Amino acid sequence: MKTINVGLIGFGTVGSGLAEVLLSQQERLLQRSGLTVRLARVADIMISELPARFADTELTNDAEGMINDPDIDIIVELIGGIQPAKTFVMDAIAAGKHVVTANKALLSQEGKEIFAAAAAKGVEVGFEASVGGGIPVIKSLKEGLVANKILSIMGIMNGTANYILTRMTDEGIAFADVLKDAQELGFAEADPTYDIEGIDTAHKLAILMTMAYGMNITHDEIATEGISQIEPMDIEFAREFGCRIKLLAISRNHDDNVEARVHPTMVPESHLLSSINGAYNAIHFTGDTVGNVLLYGPGAGKLPTGSAVAADVVDIARDIAAGSVGRVPSLSYLPGEIRDIAITPMEKLSCPWYFRISAKDEPGVLAAIAGILSRHGISIESVIQKGRQQSGPVSIVISTHTAQESSVLAALTEIDALEVVSLPTVKIRMLDETASFED
Amino acid sequence: MKTINVGLIGFGTVGSGLAEVLLSQQERLLQRSGLTVRLARVADIMISELPARFADTELTNDAEGMINDPDIDIIVELIGGIQPAKTFVMDAIAAGKHVVTANKALLSQEGKEIFAAAAAKGVEVGFEASVGGGIPVIKSLKEGLVANKILSIMGIMNGTANYILTRMTDEGIAFADVLKDAQELGFAEADPTYDIEGIDTAHKLAILMTMAYGMNITHDEIATEGISQIEPMDIEFAREFGCRIKLLAISRNHDDNVEARVHPTMVPESHLLSSINGAYNAIHFTGDTVGNVLLYGPGAGKLPTGSAVAADVVDIARDIAAGSVGRVPSLSYLPGEIRDIAITPMEKLSCPWYFRISAKDEPGVLAAIAGILSRHGISIESVIQKGRQQSGPVSIVISTHTAQESSVLAALTEIDALEVVSLPTVKIRMLDETASFED
Repeated sequence: MKTINVGLIGFGTVGSGLAEVLLSQQERLLQRSGLTVRLARVADIMISELPARFADTELTNDAEGMINDPDIDIIVELIGGIQPAKTFVMDAIAAGKHVVTANKALLSQEGKEIFAAAAAKGVEVGFEASVGGGIPVIKSLKEGLVANKILSIMGIMNGTANYILTRMTDEGIAFADVLKDAQELGFAEADPTYDIEGIDTAHKLAILMTMAYGMNITHDEIATEGISQIEPMDIEFAREFGCRIKLLAISRNHDDNVEARVHPTMVPESHLLSSINGAYNAIHFTGDTVGNVLLYGPGAGKLPTGSAVAADVVDIARDIAAGSVGRVPSLSYLPGEIRDIAITPMEKLSCPWYFRISAKDEPGVLAAIAGILSRHGISIESVIQKGRQQSGPVSIVISTHTAQESSVLAALTEIDALEVVSLPTVKIRMLDETASFED
Repeated sequence: MKTINVGLIGFGTVGSGLAEVLLSQQERLLQRSGLTVRLARVADIMISELPARFADTELTNDAEGMINDPDIDIIVELIGGIQPAKTFVMDAIAAGKHVVTANKALLSQEGKEIFAAAAAKGVEVGFEASVGGGIPVIKSLKEGLVANKILSIMGIMNGTANYILTRMTDEGIAFADVLKDAQELGFAEADPTYDIEGIDTAHKLAILMTMAYGMNITHDEIATEGISQIEPMDIEFAREFGCRIKLLAISRNHDDNVEARVHPTMVPESHLLSSINGAYNAIHFTGDTVGNVLLYGPGAGKLPTGSAVAADVVDIARDIAAGSVGRVPSLSYLPGEIRDIAITPMEKLSCPWYFRISAKDEPGVLAAIAGILSRHGISIESVIQKGRQQSGPVSIVISTHTAQESSVLAALTEIDALEVVSLPTVKIRMLDETASFED
């Protein structure tokens, strides 16, 4: 019976979650793998002792010493952020250690260097927990869907943003109020920028695209728009169009170029992604052989994330025991098969649109707006003009048929320059199911 | 570059789907595994030649000859049914061949013998396509959720039954009419018994339970009830209770005993399983560390099933190439760890209930019914008594709080014996989210 020794860097929420999972599941993992997966050591400079139940685990403040200890087989990095996480990961690889990390910021920014170093050294890098929390999305993409050309990726990949949108939808309250409440309840961080502005979602989409298409991409190549500008009335109008607003990551594969974008999206209620509520995540793949697959589960949290990290640890432990390290390439394609693919320019994208125009309540306004849209080749699907208010601008809400982004931007520039239009027009993309390879 | 030679038995819908997938994905599989996965030979006695694009594949009518050919590495059995499929699978194992099959009837009935033979011979048996079509559910359960005690399994695992229920729900038409239409459209077989009576779903639940809990179980140990008795008015009443009727497989883990049942279930609209429509499947697991995970996708079909079979083939090919055969136990637990666990007797189960009682429209009827329920400790949640009809019995529809099955059976026996009750009472179990470990 072989023992695999794990060294963990970072005993915060996720790190302590992994420790709990490895402890509570040790017997089960032995029954399922024939291996004892042991949390041998924890490196953390913020704590002075581990809870008594981790009596078999040593605490150290010397991460580098642990990285270089020949008794440690796998280094798990769970401190997050770019530095010193990157140094620890690169040093672990240099020391010939397999690495498991949940660090999506690090992988989406520095992944190319990290995976190249790991391939050169012949060690594995596991990162199941970096996307979709406890959902086995990385393994499904790498192995379960191996016999597929991935045609599209769509997902709700940030639990905080989805929690906020869900409460705005259910309770009709403003973004800022839900955010404040979420922060008090611990569902949102003190600085929520990464979550609400779509940056965290872009990190995750970059990781999925790398594996789905076998391409080089960093998160800053992804057009990213957050949810902080969404107002309760947009959610209400969405409902009138039979849609819910979700922060989606979307990528479509056009072979010689691929779309990559994160933005609030009006999702038809008939689409399963519209039913993903609260802090849950869901990732939807369309493959050329499998068709549509959706994977749903907790996008974050101590034990769910611990479950995903532990799955990576067991995967690597099995490879160590079987002598099959490198059996599945870390990025799903062999290192030599990963290539550069162009990102589709946003202005070339087409989808149906939602516009909310704030205009004076005067005769001829709608005619002027419709005229501008028409001149730009944008076809109106429906118009909602809400009952006149006592004073101030009225909302003219328009849904369009599929229109190219460049035309929309040009038309809205003209519309917003009209004297009767008092605020910049709110525009939200609608999910185009046809274009997303739905059947 | 290593070549793995696959021998396929059965070139029907799924078999030809696998052939298409291996052909269209050959280059991609090479890029992802470094291996050439080649469909070397097809054994089928019903066809005289293969389509021209399979020029690299030989056709034979001698399955046994192929099984015993030392050049063949993996035998894929896609003929379905118990015999001769079992003989081919056992002979392939005896010949030291790895086996991939989509045959849920075979595995849920003869699995113990097959897996024991495979373990003794040191060969792998892949069966991803046996549950959930193209959804990577087997791999997720075995590997992605390895660090979980599975607390419950719930799923929509038969596309035909779900297609029929979806159309009954959307269009308000009777079961028999939808079935006839589905047969004409090719969505249901000429003999649909396995699909509509829940037997196919029970096959799949038995396979999932074996892996989830590490237990011996055959499908005939699972209490199974189909959808042929569901009437449009039950679907309509379900809607009034905020529910949809789905054919669910349900298992809950009580440690020393486990529930195992397949039956029509009223699923609250707030639960994601209520939103799974058409021929799609979805499997929902609750794990003690991950929480709730749901996997959704096509439950059947030529290419989706081919995608899942191909994933198994690649998995085994990787193990052959890496010398790591047996790296993950076929049934997720090591053979020696699979034990007998008692099935919870149905009469001990508790859930909320839906009753539709057909009674004469007379004073005192509801009082008599309520009295009987009360004497059996069954607490009424709500009653719907539809407007009086011209003649004939009226429907008294009752939803209850959680009640034990044995009490319900005793109470309904008394109710159905009342002189004013004209037809046997229709009873449908409601999904008890608390009891199903939902959060």
